[in-house]
Amino acid sequence: VSHEQHGADTGLFSPAWSGSEVAKRTSDAAFLQAMLDAEAALTRAWATVGHVPAEAGRAVTEAASAERFDIISLAERARSGGNPVIPLVADLMAAVPAQFREYVHRGATSQDIVDTGLMLVTRRALAVIVADLERTAAALGALAAAHRDTAMPGRTLGQHAVPTTFGLKSAGWRSLALDAQGRLNAVLSGLPAQLGGAAGTLAAFDAWASVDLAALELLSAYARELGLVEPALPWHTLRTPIGDLAGALAFAAGALGKLGVDVFTLSRTEIAEVAEGAGGGSSAMPHKSNPVRATLLTAAARQAPALASVLFGAMAAEDERPGGAWHAEWQPLRELLRVVGGAARDAAELAEGLRVDTDKMERDLFLTGGLIVSERLTAQLSARFGRAEAKALVAAASQRARETGASLAEALRAEGVTDAGDLTDPHRYTGEAPALVDRALHRT
Amino acid sequence: VSHEQHGADTGLFSPAWSGSEVAKRTSDAAFLQAMLDAEAALTRAWATVGHVPAEAGRAVTEAASAERFDIISLAERARSGGNPVIPLVADLMAAVPAQFREYVHRGATSQDIVDTGLMLVTRRALAVIVADLERTAAALGALAAAHRDTAMPGRTLGQHAVPTTFGLKSAGWRSLALDAQGRLNAVLSGLPAQLGGAAGTLAAFDAWASVDLAALELLSAYARELGLVEPALPWHTLRTPIGDLAGALAFAAGALGKLGVDVFTLSRTEIAEVAEGAGGGSSAMPHKSNPVRATLLTAAARQAPALASVLFGAMAAEDERPGGAWHAEWQPLRELLRVVGGAARDAAELAEGLRVDTDKMERDLFLTGGLIVSERLTAQLSARFGRAEAKALVAAASQRARETGASLAEALRAEGVTDAGDLTDPHRYTGEAPALVDRALHRT
Amino acid sequence: VSHEQHGADTGLFSPAWSGSEVAKRTSDAAFLQAMLDAEAALTRAWATVGHVPAEAGRAVTEAASAERFDIISLAERARSGGNPVIPLVADLMAAVPAQFREYVHRGATSQDIVDTGLMLVTRRALAVIVADLERTAAALGALAAAHRDTAMPGRTLGQHAVPTTFGLKSAGWRSLALDAQGRLNAVLSGLPAQLGGAAGTLAAFDAWASVDLAALELLSAYARELGLVEPALPWHTLRTPIGDLAGALAFAAGALGKLGVDVFTLSRTEIAEVAEGAGGGSSAMPHKSNPVRATLLTAAARQAPALASVLFGAMAAEDERPGGAWHAEWQPLRELLRVVGGAARDAAELAEGLRVDTDKMERDLFLTGGLIVSERLTAQLSARFGRAEAKALVAAASQRARETGASLAEALRAEGVTDAGDLTDPHRYTGEAPALVDRALHRT
Amino acid sequence: VSHEQHGADTGLFSPAWSGSEVAKRTSDAAFLQAMLDAEAALTRAWATVGHVPAEAGRAVTEAASAERFDIISLAERARSGGNPVIPLVADLMAAVPAQFREYVHRGATSQDIVDTGLMLVTRRALAVIVADLERTAAALGALAAAHRDTAMPGRTLGQHAVPTTFGLKSAGWRSLALDAQGRLNAVLSGLPAQLGGAAGTLAAFDAWASVDLAALELLSAYARELGLVEPALPWHTLRTPIGDLAGALAFAAGALGKLGVDVFTLSRTEIAEVAEGAGGGSSAMPHKSNPVRATLLTAAARQAPALASVLFGAMAAEDERPGGAWHAEWQPLRELLRVVGGAARDAAELAEGLRVDTDKMERDLFLTGGLIVSERLTAQLSARFGRAEAKALVAAASQRARETGASLAEALRAEGVTDAGDLTDPHRYTGEAPALVDRALHRT
Repeated sequence: VSHEQHGADTGLFSPAWSGSEVAKRTSDAAFLQAMLDAEAALTRAWATVGHVPAEAGRAVTEAASAERFDIISLAERARSGGNPVIPLVADLMAAVPAQFREYVHRGATSQDIVDTGLMLVTRRALAVIVADLERTAAALGALAAAHRDTAMPGRTLGQHAVPTTFGLKSAGWRSLALDAQGRLNAVLSGLPAQLGGAAGTLAAFDAWASVDLAALELLSAYARELGLVEPALPWHTLRTPIGDLAGALAFAAGALGKLGVDVFTLSRTEIAEVAEGAGGGSSAMPHKSNPVRATLLTAAARQAPALASVLFGAMAAEDERPGGAWHAEWQPLRELLRVVGGAARDAAELAEGLRVDTDKMERDLFLTGGLIVSERLTAQLSARFGRAEAKALVAAASQRARETGASLAEALRAEGVTDAGDLTDPHRYTGEAPALVDRALHRT
Repeated sequence: VSHEQHGADTGLFSPAWSGSEVAKRTSDAAFLQAMLDAEAALTRAWATVGHVPAEAGRAVTEAASAERFDIISLAERARSGGNPVIPLVADLMAAVPAQFREYVHRGATSQDIVDTGLMLVTRRALAVIVADLERTAAALGALAAAHRDTAMPGRTLGQHAVPTTFGLKSAGWRSLALDAQGRLNAVLSGLPAQLGGAAGTLAAFDAWASVDLAALELLSAYARELGLVEPALPWHTLRTPIGDLAGALAFAAGALGKLGVDVFTLSRTEIAEVAEGAGGGSSAMPHKSNPVRATLLTAAARQAPALASVLFGAMAAEDERPGGAWHAEWQPLRELLRVVGGAARDAAELAEGLRVDTDKMERDLFLTGGLIVSERLTAQLSARFGRAEAKALVAAASQRARETGASLAEALRAEGVTDAGDLTDPHRYTGEAPALVDRALHRT
Repeated sequence: VSHEQHGADTGLFSPAWSGSEVAKRTSDAAFLQAMLDAEAALTRAWATVGHVPAEAGRAVTEAASAERFDIISLAERARSGGNPVIPLVADLMAAVPAQFREYVHRGATSQDIVDTGLMLVTRRALAVIVADLERTAAALGALAAAHRDTAMPGRTLGQHAVPTTFGLKSAGWRSLALDAQGRLNAVLSGLPAQLGGAAGTLAAFDAWASVDLAALELLSAYARELGLVEPALPWHTLRTPIGDLAGALAFAAGALGKLGVDVFTLSRTEIAEVAEGAGGGSSAMPHKSNPVRATLLTAAARQAPALASVLFGAMAAEDERPGGAWHAEWQPLRELLRVVGGAARDAAELAEGLRVDTDKMERDLFLTGGLIVSERLTAQLSARFGRAEAKALVAAASQRARETGASLAEALRAEGVTDAGDLTDPHRYTGEAPALVDRALHRT
Repeated sequence: VSHEQHGADTGLFSPAWSGSEVAKRTSDAAFLQAMLDAEAALTRAWATVGHVPAEAGRAVTEAASAERFDIISLAERARSGGNPVIPLVADLMAAVPAQFREYVHRGATSQDIVDTGLMLVTRRALAVIVADLERTAAALGALAAAHRDTAMPGRTLGQHAVPTTFGLKSAGWRSLALDAQGRLNAVLSGLPAQLGGAAGTLAAFDAWASVDLAALELLSAYARELGLVEPALPWHTLRTPIGDLAGALAFAAGALGKLGVDVFTLSRTEIAEVAEGAGGGSSAMPHKSNPVRATLLTAAARQAPALASVLFGAMAAEDERPGGAWHAEWQPLRELLRVVGGAARDAAELAEGLRVDTDKMERDLFLTGGLIVSERLTAQLSARFGRAEAKALVAAASQRARETGASLAEALRAEGVTDAGDLTDPHRYTGEAPALVDRALHRT
């Protein structure tokens, strides 16, 4: 049976993560390898604590190579028990020399292997994501520094409000990328191994031990073999790691989504203050250069919160293994890793390639005929004329400026304010934006 | 590059839909075929309205066979433009004899092909789902008829309340399956073709026409070729079909989830009033027969609402094609079809194989020492003693029954109520349950 | 205790629905009245079927007036039982003359009253929402007719693509409003009464009957008294009405959200093709006129899908009353009604007051120096020069037009195409947009 | 206008948080007070940096008392601008002596006040939640210690698996409560003040300053006045605090939901191993004692993830103030605080009052006729007979035990295994459960 016939997905409808390193690290083959790694680590841990021969650990480790296994057959046989470990253990035993078969999966429950596999896959995927966030932050930091003083319109509810600088905008994007990186790193450093046996008491490990065993030592050895954290308790239905992942990954998607919607907005034909380095083409209109990376970032930010909500909901898992909550985690967690993985890749490319049109920013500062500095004028003329009259003056002058094409300073002069001077210059009304950029860039 | 290396998914972590017919009909290969079907239908429609040679329609149709295309290459090239149609059109043109190439994708935009492909895939997947719901309803109808009068405890907030019948429970499950089927059929019968060109005005079809064309005729011909409904307007950002799908699919998952949680609950070791025909095994405990189908139904009901929420959210799609909302639909819609497809398959198997332990139901009716009929006793003794005294009498007798092991009728006799007789029989307190079953089964 | 001290919400942070008719119809007082209506209808129904005196029905109906009850006290006493019916029944009995007290709540369970109350509240709220959608559709229909031929840029991924008309855009908004109205009307016409007693068997109604009663007759009479549909089965854990509401309300929010994001986008300072009739002010910038209605529509579309997802998730409700799923419906359903109610009000005001700047639309058509018609030129010049050369010609002429300020027709002449004429006129490239408007407006 | 007529909510349909301290701290009045606190802090901060008279700070602070303001009027006037600050500033100015009016809201934008108000409300609500989690953890710790060795069935997929102890279960609940507390405390300690002016550049503060001002000093002074953290950047569209809150609150709801579903399950009539100290009554069945707290915890866990998903989604907020994403945060954040606040209160009461029926646990250990220790027997008899024969022996003996009522040890003896002894005692197969309890309780 070929993959196509079986119904394999290769990312045809997921351009956001298709072909990405994170997609590879979260593929079925990657999950299979991670579960095999868990099985091999368990047998080696048994050997470490002295209860099985060291050769058994080596034999299982050697056999535990994903390419030897038939994923499609495993997937189909996974159905009857509701998880892939039962057929996997059978196939792994068959792949191990007869004398070592009894040492495979000793004392473990399916969930030990699935959960440990999920943590390994997560660790491998997060390593890439965190690196891409670092690239993203670096590129955004360079933009912030370069455009520390580049004035442009600040926009609220879609309307020009007061000037800001492109540096401040970039510094804000960077701070979100760093926040996301920080939250993911915190989760990454705490990903735990899972080992508890059928009901999380570790009882089966005692039962299978040839002599007295402190099963907690086995747990330690297992976690060390895997490079995962040893948990205080088996966490079959204490889903703290899953809840933490849900939060950190949804956060990251939102953080990068902000970059996406901003670049998308600033790329609009009428605004065109930035453009993606290599925009996407169109099947119908040869001239178009679409903000594809920004679009995909936005699409990711629309999907991640819902996926995370399934994971948060699955924390309310009854008993020692629940009837549905656990099974409901697998696909959403995998897809969440991919969605964020694709977004981090897109963000890095976007940030590194972003083209900034400072001329257009400059022109846009004057689009409202000076209203963009009306807040300032009102504030400063209030001292002279009182608040109400100041407001009226500014409104009248702005209207005149737009109607006559005169500069706002000229229009104010016609209203009798002869010394408006610098007050009407948007470049001189960026407030603390440059200082805020400096302050934000101190963070590393 | 093999699929494993590329990161293909084959359902290893989706036992709920792994290997299912719906999974096949929603695979990348199925989407590819559906998009090719859309392209071929477009060229044939052009021929139908007399603007391209009939041979061109035949040539494109012949070339438009998914197995000729390299999905992985398409997936990778899809990235730059953010959707798979640009590389697909290039490959399709290359697969068509040179003289017909110009008739490929004439006037269409990527979204015409992707959306039409999504509708074709949806139609093909829904056909299976609806059939599985029909099987489910039929099996549940048989259970309802067979157990019309089989009394069992009704449970509210986990506590025995008053008796019900297993027939009424089954009739309720059936009514939900029929409701789900009805809602999916309504959507199925309205799935529209998509054709509008770059901004939904059909202008390019006029531009490419060799002579005057009423492009609306082309739209009609295209929809007829596909067997899809002709929409009143191109719906690039009028996402009614997607919103309807979201609602109907989330509904179906919830409807089947009710069956799942009920069977899961009634399968608990302590209750054990029903059991799955073929429960799932355990990697650690050979004796276990797990309610795997019920578990997977519950897991589906946990995932579908979140996936649907992404689709509802994507209805707020700006402009003539949005920056993210459209791209955010693809994976959630596919996964939603699969989750519901897997659930419908599981529900059918579950309903057809369910084993009912009427003896256990009978024993459970007496588990509370008669409290399960206390409502009735209170009601009927109120006429004699007033409400307050009736309550006190029933409470005292129930306590005595539990403590002494006496029947409730005996215990009431000890309290001076000598004619409780049938009043204490749970079988005689199923109310209108049998009549409700009859009423519900009239629906077809 | 005043409401403020108790923690009442009056909509201070919900400008979208604050003070709306729907907010009033979904207030605690409205829910209280609806539950009282259910209680009164039940006693009257008992009278109708001849089992309680007609005076009792009148007495309970007279007592069942919300202003007589202390909502805050009810809310606090609701805590111990987890729903407000237990204290409500106590207070209602106290408000009824002693001789009729025994006829209050006879045979009913809390859920009968809460669910019926929810359906009454829903019916009353939906009536307003549907009317507001009708107003919205009427206003949008007028816009579509008035601007059937008003050309403007069509935008995809934020970039000018090809021309469309503002009429087509308005017709699309209208079709979504009508779709939403249709789906809500379908739900509205099927809202069922709830009556089943403790476990949905209607047994208690038989038990309380003075003589033989077909409890199904009581159910009919009860539904008639309420003007709600008589359900085939009590639906305590068959949540079809809730699932349908979730879908229809989330659909409506998405449909109106599309109007919101479009108006928001077209209101941007740089685009400014439309403006809200009465935009919102700013606390800091006196000149600003914000697209507040559009913003609130977008905010509604962000909240509704998540609220609906809770309702869909609650369909998987175990037993005859579930442990959490039912309780989880109340607030999300109320908030969903309010969010959609506020959105429908905002949409009607927005549509009725929208100002259209056709001059700006006209200017924007020429913003890309003719690229907006490049698709058409390429199509038509392909016949003469072949596709590749046609593309190159158009690209060169467009660049020249932008650089020199010449018209595209002039630029093409410089490239040797002397008869481009009408081909370069965006007004002549709106395709079937006007015809589509006509077609869409036929729907009523 | 009375609150009822206006549509006030007092929690009638929210028994989970009705009347709670958190509900009070998140009421409209509480939000109003928090916004007034922000306004007063701003004027005082201006005084601190020497730009307005100290008397002005005192005057605004004195006027800024919520009970002086008409919430309903504010709510209604909030509509036109889309937020309550514009009318609030007007009313606050009117409440301040004329000579100080000009110092109200100086330089600030609406969002400065709303966001700061949200952070103050959040801080006040979280303080209660964290304290309730502490109470919960303390009570659960006591249960864990008391029942360290109390054996009971471990259950997976609803089926008895192997024994566990109630202490381990309680220790797990406690660890989740502590995890939730830790995550909320982390957020609590970082809640930032918001101050940036119209576009987050702090420019207006410079403009309004009577002499040169380092506006960053004003920001520091403002944060100090409020006891909130000074942010590195104004965070109008850098929604890190909101994303963090979403994650931590959804986590807490999930963590407590686990307690809820477990207690609900163990309270089932057939299991009845625990009971709530004061269960809820029923309007129809006088005998029932419902697990109401557990039910409400479960209901909370169903709502919180969806509410959090809106907040995560709102992180993708375009420009300097977005068109909808910000407005979409308010109600979900408030409701999320309330849902978690109610859950924390319920959890504390539940944990403190939980009644444990160790006799029932003991009886349930023997419900499967020894299958609950089959894993152990298989493991240990494998050494003697090989794995396959061991399995068969255990299966045969278990069946015999159930059929004959004999003990499993006796049944094994009949199969020729005469020394099963302790191996069949479920109390001796709790593995490391007691040691894990000790280990978990070391965490404080």
